[in-house]
Amino acid sequence: MNQTENMIQAAFSQRINQVPRSFIRDILSVTNKPEIISFAGGLPNKDFFPIEEIKACTQKVLEQEGHQALQYSTTEGLPALREQICANYKKQGLKVSPNQVLITTGSQQALDLIGKVFIDKGDRVLIEEPAYLGAIQAMSMYEPEFYPVPLTNQGLNPFLLEETLIQKNIKLAYLVPNFQNPSGISYTEQRRAEVAELITKHNVLIIEDDPYGSIRFGEKAHHSLYYYAPEHTFMLGTFSKTVAPGFRIGWIVAPNQHYYEKLVTAKQAADLHSDIFSQRIISSFLSEYELENHIKKIIKAYKSQSEVMIQAMEEHFPSEASFTKPQGGMFCWVNMPSHFSAMKLFHEAIKQNVAFVPGVPFYIGKQDSNTFRLNFSCSTPEEIQEGIRRLSEAIKNNFT
Amino acid sequence: MNQTENMIQAAFSQRINQVPRSFIRDILSVTNKPEIISFAGGLPNKDFFPIEEIKACTQKVLEQEGHQALQYSTTEGLPALREQICANYKKQGLKVSPNQVLITTGSQQALDLIGKVFIDKGDRVLIEEPAYLGAIQAMSMYEPEFYPVPLTNQGLNPFLLEETLIQKNIKLAYLVPNFQNPSGISYTEQRRAEVAELITKHNVLIIEDDPYGSIRFGEKAHHSLYYYAPEHTFMLGTFSKTVAPGFRIGWIVAPNQHYYEKLVTAKQAADLHSDIFSQRIISSFLSEYELENHIKKIIKAYKSQSEVMIQAMEEHFPSEASFTKPQGGMFCWVNMPSHFSAMKLFHEAIKQNVAFVPGVPFYIGKQDSNTFRLNFSCSTPEEIQEGIRRLSEAIKNNFT
Repeated sequence: MNQTENMIQAAFSQRINQVPRSFIRDILSVTNKPEIISFAGGLPNKDFFPIEEIKACTQKVLEQEGHQALQYSTTEGLPALREQICANYKKQGLKVSPNQVLITTGSQQALDLIGKVFIDKGDRVLIEEPAYLGAIQAMSMYEPEFYPVPLTNQGLNPFLLEETLIQKNIKLAYLVPNFQNPSGISYTEQRRAEVAELITKHNVLIIEDDPYGSIRFGEKAHHSLYYYAPEHTFMLGTFSKTVAPGFRIGWIVAPNQHYYEKLVTAKQAADLHSDIFSQRIISSFLSEYELENHIKKIIKAYKSQSEVMIQAMEEHFPSEASFTKPQGGMFCWVNMPSHFSAMKLFHEAIKQNVAFVPGVPFYIGKQDSNTFRLNFSCSTPEEIQEGIRRLSEAIKNNFT
Repeated sequence: MNQTENMIQAAFSQRINQVPRSFIRDILSVTNKPEIISFAGGLPNKDFFPIEEIKACTQKVLEQEGHQALQYSTTEGLPALREQICANYKKQGLKVSPNQVLITTGSQQALDLIGKVFIDKGDRVLIEEPAYLGAIQAMSMYEPEFYPVPLTNQGLNPFLLEETLIQKNIKLAYLVPNFQNPSGISYTEQRRAEVAELITKHNVLIIEDDPYGSIRFGEKAHHSLYYYAPEHTFMLGTFSKTVAPGFRIGWIVAPNQHYYEKLVTAKQAADLHSDIFSQRIISSFLSEYELENHIKKIIKAYKSQSEVMIQAMEEHFPSEASFTKPQGGMFCWVNMPSHFSAMKLFHEAIKQNVAFVPGVPFYIGKQDSNTFRLNFSCSTPEEIQEGIRRLSEAIKNNFT
């Protein structure tokens, strides 16, 4: 480095040097070629964006409340939208007051705000292994130490959970109990109760992130962790997977008013408020149309796509590969034997014109992994079948 | 406090306890009554929101690029919008590349991101006195020490500026050279050159916040600090005062690619990207309509409102009051004799059904001030005349 570069490097805060570079950003730049079938993304399927409905709602908002939709607004978010969110929770048997709901610029901002308000440097944060890497990135800004606890197919391993809670003096746990990204795993009802009980016993805060909960293929919905531990749980939600992500509208349910007030202060400092035009459009959409009916269409498609993917993997993958069979959400997770390199497989797969995300960014401090993530929400059944066939070729080449 | 409350308080990070409570939020809750003429707000005039044009642009965006407008998008922001921002700078004689432009969720987020990337606890930040309190709030999250340097009518006092730069080992200076909030003061051309030279000499970073620069009543535009110190200056901009604030779309121009990349990393962790639907609407508005013509209407109104306010103050205020005569923006700043309490005046003024913001939140560590801020952009000429008359009554009552 020359002198100028040294000066530039010296200007950065300590925290920004802690934040992992986005591996997925780098990967997506390789996987954008048209000849590649990509299971690497994490996007909802654009075919289900309610464009015509949004068009109608937008017109209505501009005609009936244009001035308010374009002016500055309150930090907490649109009162009508906060009430609609509570009404949805009520249908699930959860009692939430609009005074607990803070509208955020996507769930991602919820993670940033909770980090800002609750994490000091060196505070200990428990995460799932593998974990959603956007949460690791957001919280890294506040320089905690992360303690991963392995996920089983039933949810977080309760013995390792309690051991970590006791030994590591954990302050905050970040959990995604429904159809987790990247694993597709959903906690069983019993595991939810156990996890919530342990968390409550050790007086730890929970971030319960739930972007995929309503994209549920069949089985009856389980209770949220908030249901079991309402005094300890921040419940996060978003319209990104059910309406559209472009609006960047999500929310936090705070467990008490003390926490809520500080989150509002942090939100105000962060961006004053989230786009009020988009908040009003979503609110109008929720009152004019039946969100549940809209979600049913998404579920039908994703369910079928996931089934095609699982069937193709069962047909083509070598017997050494195991994979989750998600009952909702957008992702499958593949486990290979322990010596297997998903990074090597990635480069081989690109040669075969198929892409995925190697597992490494979903762990703390790993250089490689024997796991990888497959997204099924954005590919046609034909693409899924052909892509899994190509991937199985790459796996076979990688084994030899 | 009982035990539960103690536990709740103990959960908060150190940083959140550093952040000043929003004084203005508290004040606005008092000033919302219909009988009160309020100069307390800081809103652009809603009558100039281009609702019909936005309606047309929104339809076009949804018809022509609905899928992209509702999907996840890139962290940096819409390429077309970043090019349009550069084209606007080019008209001002400034060469800026789209690769330097990061779209943010309002200018407020720009302050949060720069704080995140460049401020460690205890770093020293130079601010104007009085200063924009949203910036103090945003940067407080990163626990710097603030060093205020008084504003004169020509801009920052250069002698005190250099003294502070030398004695305090300043890392970052936050400056608003055009029609500052709260003072309405604009730096002279000579003062800009002097300030930029000093800053460059002492190798300090500048945040040049410019929400009001294009709302200029008459005189020829001055050069930006970025023009004089392009290697040291983050130039901020926003569509909040020129198009509409509800969209929350602003931007940062970063002085080099190293800084830019880290800001992108911080932005991704903060909210992935800003509302892409709104970015596309604004981009469409900029290509379909002439922004300059739209701004001319805003200027005409605000100029007239400011003149009415100044004339009314000259007529009614006691000779002890002095006030700025802004040549742009949305605010006047009133100075009273040193023993005068703007807080006391506020309570008296509310009795007279007129409101303003006492100066205290615009300073660091003050409990009261002899100064206050008046907003002229949201009141009719009649309201301004009547409001200033009422305010002068309150001042007279406060003097006796």
